[in-house]
Amino acid sequence: MKFNQITPEILAAFEAIVGSANLITARHVEADVYAGYGRDHTEDLHFAPDVVLKPGSTEEVSQIMRLCHEHHIPVTARGAGTGLSGGALPIHNGLVLSMERFNKIIQIDERNLQATVEPGVVTEAFQNAVKEVGLFYPPDPASKGSCFLGGNLSQSSGGPKAVKYGTTKDYVLNLQVVLPTGEVIWTGANTLKNATGYNLTQLMVGSEGTLGIITRVVFRLLPYPQQNILMLVPFRQEAQAAEAVSAVFRAGIIPSGMEFMEREAIAWSSNYLNIPLTLPEDITAHLLIELDGQDLDQLYKEAEQVYAVLETYDVGEILLADTAAQKDDLWRIRRNIGNSVRYNSVYKEEDTVVPRAELPTLLKGVKEIGARYGFKSVCYGHAGDGNLHVNIIRGELDDEMWNVGLRQPISEIFELCVKLGGTISGEHGIGLVQKPFISIALKEANLNLMRGIKQVFDPHGILNPGKIF
Amino acid sequence: MKFNQITPEILAAFEAIVGSANLITARHVEADVYAGYGRDHTEDLHFAPDVVLKPGSTEEVSQIMRLCHEHHIPVTARGAGTGLSGGALPIHNGLVLSMERFNKIIQIDERNLQATVEPGVVTEAFQNAVKEVGLFYPPDPASKGSCFLGGNLSQSSGGPKAVKYGTTKDYVLNLQVVLPTGEVIWTGANTLKNATGYNLTQLMVGSEGTLGIITRVVFRLLPYPQQNILMLVPFRQEAQAAEAVSAVFRAGIIPSGMEFMEREAIAWSSNYLNIPLTLPEDITAHLLIELDGQDLDQLYKEAEQVYAVLETYDVGEILLADTAAQKDDLWRIRRNIGNSVRYNSVYKEEDTVVPRAELPTLLKGVKEIGARYGFKSVCYGHAGDGNLHVNIIRGELDDEMWNVGLRQPISEIFELCVKLGGTISGEHGIGLVQKPFISIALKEANLNLMRGIKQVFDPHGILNPGKIF
Repeated sequence: MKFNQITPEILAAFEAIVGSANLITARHVEADVYAGYGRDHTEDLHFAPDVVLKPGSTEEVSQIMRLCHEHHIPVTARGAGTGLSGGALPIHNGLVLSMERFNKIIQIDERNLQATVEPGVVTEAFQNAVKEVGLFYPPDPASKGSCFLGGNLSQSSGGPKAVKYGTTKDYVLNLQVVLPTGEVIWTGANTLKNATGYNLTQLMVGSEGTLGIITRVVFRLLPYPQQNILMLVPFRQEAQAAEAVSAVFRAGIIPSGMEFMEREAIAWSSNYLNIPLTLPEDITAHLLIELDGQDLDQLYKEAEQVYAVLETYDVGEILLADTAAQKDDLWRIRRNIGNSVRYNSVYKEEDTVVPRAELPTLLKGVKEIGARYGFKSVCYGHAGDGNLHVNIIRGELDDEMWNVGLRQPISEIFELCVKLGGTISGEHGIGLVQKPFISIALKEANLNLMRGIKQVFDPHGILNPGKIF
Repeated sequence: MKFNQITPEILAAFEAIVGSANLITARHVEADVYAGYGRDHTEDLHFAPDVVLKPGSTEEVSQIMRLCHEHHIPVTARGAGTGLSGGALPIHNGLVLSMERFNKIIQIDERNLQATVEPGVVTEAFQNAVKEVGLFYPPDPASKGSCFLGGNLSQSSGGPKAVKYGTTKDYVLNLQVVLPTGEVIWTGANTLKNATGYNLTQLMVGSEGTLGIITRVVFRLLPYPQQNILMLVPFRQEAQAAEAVSAVFRAGIIPSGMEFMEREAIAWSSNYLNIPLTLPEDITAHLLIELDGQDLDQLYKEAEQVYAVLETYDVGEILLADTAAQKDDLWRIRRNIGNSVRYNSVYKEEDTVVPRAELPTLLKGVKEIGARYGFKSVCYGHAGDGNLHVNIIRGELDDEMWNVGLRQPISEIFELCVKLGGTISGEHGIGLVQKPFISIALKEANLNLMRGIKQVFDPHGILNPGKIF
């Protein structure tokens, strides 16, 4: 694709659309503020946009897109910048479209258990707002306190509750989308069922900002589960922790959380947060298991069944969280593993996913590959979904190995995922950093279909160019 | 699109691929058997195929598609022929690809709660097979005893359990698809989460056989809910029955079934099945409410909460089904409404869907439109999803009104659905019979995207031509 520069005339047109307060270039703000628009939470990448616009309405986004389509100017939509695959980075420069002003919860429809929101609402703020009226929006990525719903949609984000409740994609009913040409559509209807033409809604979800700009979302909601039980289960053998995951499901229990943490993951995070945690020497891994529902007696019955399953493994003393504060601590430890790894070392995170019973094989394979290539990894993740975050630790690796040499072992990890029936990203997306590995997961025929779809939506290829494929 | 005839040479090539036993033309079988391949369960439509093939493997389908792609021959895939929108009818003649030999359950993976099946497996047979090992495949269209899983995928079928468990689309993890060019792909991975490129899996689901031929499916499964409670709730006012639906959800209960039946729907069906049912004169509608789970005590608690909600309405005596036989009778009555309507009268069925709290408004609107245009309707359906099947009864309507005049009131019903946030098909698909109404639900920009996607998958337009748009 050949793109054009933003001329002074086009810049003036942008300013006329969004107003001068909502147009930023390197000249308008301090260098580090501006640089922030070219970064996300992915390793150490930076690409400077030529201009940042903060539109305030669908109509403004439409006008901007029309102009960019006409002049072949790259447009990269940006949410909160918490992505882990470089998906929101403007690698061809051009325009960054910051959706931060789309921050309104438009309606919480208690009659229909639905809500209409803008994509710049922070995920946790939305969860809290619906909880206030007894409703539940389950998707909860680790960054829920800062990430935007729009970013969650772009990357098909999950989180710990996905094991019982599904991911972001399972809560979207309808999307308002500005197409690259400036046309505005709704992708579906505000209904739980829809058999009316191709599913454009699910085509948008996970498309990483390459097909259109989401400007409004209708989510379905659930009644809020009023009760929960949380237990931390220490294992003496990592492989058994991974095996126990599948066994709990086979006993007929669907936990609302089923998280796996290697010893180092939990140790680093509890140190990082300064939350004391007893960690006997022989413990190599933990499962954090949550059960939720409307009735506590019922949950205790289910917990007994879970205990019965766990007894068949070599587990240490199970910690049953007694208070809301203790539960909060345990979840904070789990959520901050990523931050603590970042605090301890430079690292690369791979978002591997396999059918859940294959988790022991994947974990063993990751360690074996690490041993062979001489790197250490800290692994944790959503074990109930078979979604294992593999953090490769920089440690003593030299620049050559870190920047080039790791590509081979990472390929081997991804090949193992695919061989086990899985794929190379469960919830972080492909973006920029996993793009070199896409052909491990997808055949050329799949990629050709995706390229064709991209061409249909975006004939000039201006939306988030250079991502996914 | 311009299509070619099947020449004797091409016919010979087909025969070489599938074998003579699996190639049928009008000369090979009795006229009514052959005619069956040109019909489905939609009203009184018939279109004769030029030839019917029954391939036995993905490789055979691939060879057939390659040939048809090269020679521009229309291909209409066919499951069990239970569709209600004419989706499987070969309206441009050509080839009907009957998937009846793809009838194997390849693997039930108890470790991963997954199953790999061929698309020609009967839905209920699959449900029973997984139930034997304690697993649950929830989607259950009314025709589950005869319909194929492949047809369910094509039409994004639902059924009564969708209110709690979602529709067919929510259980598909991965699809093997033969593209119109003959290429074979898998659309995704066998994982609960996947953020690896565009969601081709969900693009296939509901695409009504216009994008590719599904030859293998990986479904996710759930632990089988061992207990259930079923209650039949009579209402003196239809509108209150529709209102109570939403109220139950707001009380924090998610029933596993929440079916609405007008008086005539339930009366006709119980007569048709010869199942005696007390139906006091003042009762105008019923809700059939099912709760399910692993623990009966828990279900009784929930049932009490449902009773508390229902007490606020003008209901008759609630029938709590005591035995498995009684439950079976009630569900048979519900499932046979369609058959009993067909038995009583020529009819047209519209598959309307709205956000669930809008159901009373939709129902009132349907009756008002009927009164204005002089037709009677029998309404029933999946109230928990806002999915109302409107059966327009032929009665005394003349040919002109039946064949032409009804188009206007049907349009008005659909326009009302869209105005209420809904759409024109919840689970039956657009196929042939709803195609004239598609622009009520979808803007030209949506349709253009869909046409573009179709072109990417099927450049010669040979797959199920003339459907949806």
